[in-house]
Amino acid sequence: MRIAVLGHGVIGRHVCATLEASAEHELRWILERPELATAPKMTADVSRIMNDPEVELVCDILPGTHPSYEYMKLALEAGKHVVTVNKAALCFGFRELVELAERGGLCLRYEAACGGTIPNVAETLKLAQTNELEAVYGIMNGTTNFIIDRMNREGADFAPALREAQRLGYAEADPTADLSGFDVKNKIIILSNTAYRCYCTDEFPVCGIQRLTRGILDGFAAAGKTVKLFGLSVRRGERYAIGVAPVVLPLDALEAHVPANFNLFTLRGDKAGEIKLYGQGAGGVPTADAVVRDIQAIAAASARPGGAYFSRALVYDPTLLSGAGYIGGTRYEGTLAELCARARAEDKFLAFEPATL
Amino acid sequence: MRIAVLGHGVIGRHVCATLEASAEHELRWILERPELATAPKMTADVSRIMNDPEVELVCDILPGTHPSYEYMKLALEAGKHVVTVNKAALCFGFRELVELAERGGLCLRYEAACGGTIPNVAETLKLAQTNELEAVYGIMNGTTNFIIDRMNREGADFAPALREAQRLGYAEADPTADLSGFDVKNKIIILSNTAYRCYCTDEFPVCGIQRLTRGILDGFAAAGKTVKLFGLSVRRGERYAIGVAPVVLPLDALEAHVPANFNLFTLRGDKAGEIKLYGQGAGGVPTADAVVRDIQAIAAASARPGGAYFSRALVYDPTLLSGAGYIGGTRYEGTLAELCARARAEDKFLAFEPATL
Repeated sequence: MRIAVLGHGVIGRHVCATLEASAEHELRWILERPELATAPKMTADVSRIMNDPEVELVCDILPGTHPSYEYMKLALEAGKHVVTVNKAALCFGFRELVELAERGGLCLRYEAACGGTIPNVAETLKLAQTNELEAVYGIMNGTTNFIIDRMNREGADFAPALREAQRLGYAEADPTADLSGFDVKNKIIILSNTAYRCYCTDEFPVCGIQRLTRGILDGFAAAGKTVKLFGLSVRRGERYAIGVAPVVLPLDALEAHVPANFNLFTLRGDKAGEIKLYGQGAGGVPTADAVVRDIQAIAAASARPGGAYFSRALVYDPTLLSGAGYIGGTRYEGTLAELCARARAEDKFLAFEPATL
Repeated sequence: MRIAVLGHGVIGRHVCATLEASAEHELRWILERPELATAPKMTADVSRIMNDPEVELVCDILPGTHPSYEYMKLALEAGKHVVTVNKAALCFGFRELVELAERGGLCLRYEAACGGTIPNVAETLKLAQTNELEAVYGIMNGTTNFIIDRMNREGADFAPALREAQRLGYAEADPTADLSGFDVKNKIIILSNTAYRCYCTDEFPVCGIQRLTRGILDGFAAAGKTVKLFGLSVRRGERYAIGVAPVVLPLDALEAHVPANFNLFTLRGDKAGEIKLYGQGAGGVPTADAVVRDIQAIAAASARPGGAYFSRALVYDPTLLSGAGYIGGTRYEGTLAELCARARAEDKFLAFEPATL
């Protein structure tokens, strides 16, 4: 395929290198900032890419919601397939982008937007062909897993574990998006949409790990438990619930042993049962590999859309995520929404123990 | 597609039910034993199926190597795609079946032969498009994992844990194929072939868990370790090694916490890094779901073969699987082949600690 790549950071460079080395694909354009757009094929003018009728597929590897979202729209309107790594932009305009793609008979693929190299989206789409998906949950953020793993393994406190994550490049200088659960929020929306074939709400409880302390982890460890930040999503018939929260786990749970900045996603289908997928949720080379696999799937025609995939109208029902919440040493029962609200009001850490998942 | 299903046991019945309920597919024939072939579409005469020009795809869900292997050959020679769950028959004639399929431009898919519902084969094929696969390893047998998990969690001894597995239907009345590693041997051959795009040898060290005792597990537990039966396969450039053996694991390894009869496969690509896939490696409904997903992939043309996939000639080099072996309380170093031979000669349990994987 003839391909344009928007963005030339770490991931973009790896994607471009793979495409340049490929016999099947042709890298036509690289969108780069004006001062850096000096090499052949580079341009700072996105309209040259969108107006090039030979470009069949646009790879969006830009950071931030804008102009990534607008560029994806332009590409789909111009009849080009889109592959994106940008979860914020994808969540911002999920329905609009999907409907544009469907109207144009185009593919919109987003494997790398949802857990880096881990084949969550492809597996969800494949399972959804033969299964009713009943739940999607797990460790969807490498930064927070790294911090908690560091605290668990080395007895570190929160602040030095965060600094170590920043030193290693796993956490941003401003780590808010990771620590607050916002990054996981976007991933669980995208995966829930894909699993349940609907457009899920983006208004649901989100609790992060900003208030996590050594003492809290020690308390759970003494009870044979630990805590990991989870994206959570369940469906029962026509109803669903979504949330993001630190989840209490027994020490023999697989999730309790996910090391460093790795992720572990669980998909539950009514026939396949639970399938868990583990791998690098970030990183230049692994994420670029997921982008190229999306391109390959589109090129092989195996990713062609089959009509209105996101056609279901499900109802958001927060009671489907209920259980116990540990807040400041006290155990409460309620929905995750209620427990999140209480933790927020008290400015304390919430550890959520789902009654059912 | 118009489909014939060979075999009408637990998995076969689920596959047939799904096909009967499907709008896209037509179940044309079910091969059943003469005394049971009483319902519509059933026949005991395989030639009626092979000679029916309308049948496009044959699902082989028969037990044992023969006549499953011969029927797959007949189907491919008759120009029909093949989906099989039968790892023994597939291993017996892997190269011949693949070459028949390639000559005929047909698909031969075998997801369910290699870890039930877990998408090992599909993911291996997908990763191999963009990665050099460097290793495939993990827990590939639910029976032995159940026994070891039971021994670990409940302090049970080997014999009662095996009896419990038999009571629950996880182990056969004659459990030799599971306990000896023979079942894993077939799976690791199939996955290695698929990962390295070659026809791997079937002559490599295989050690099972027949000699595992409570005392051996207690000894490792005292050192913060445990043991699980692994299929092991590594590649370095043009050389590879394969083996089956109980592997020593630290207690914080993910594999140490795989519960009950679940499986956990690891694929390592040079770009994607390690991807781990967890799920039910057996069971009627989950395995049937993998069969139907293979059918869907063929129907969607996404599984069409792309020329000579298994075209590489790699060299078997047993030194690539070397490390320490614990045999009867003594630690030895060597290749897995040497350590297996020693354990066999002493009629003792081998726990293998790979130096590199």
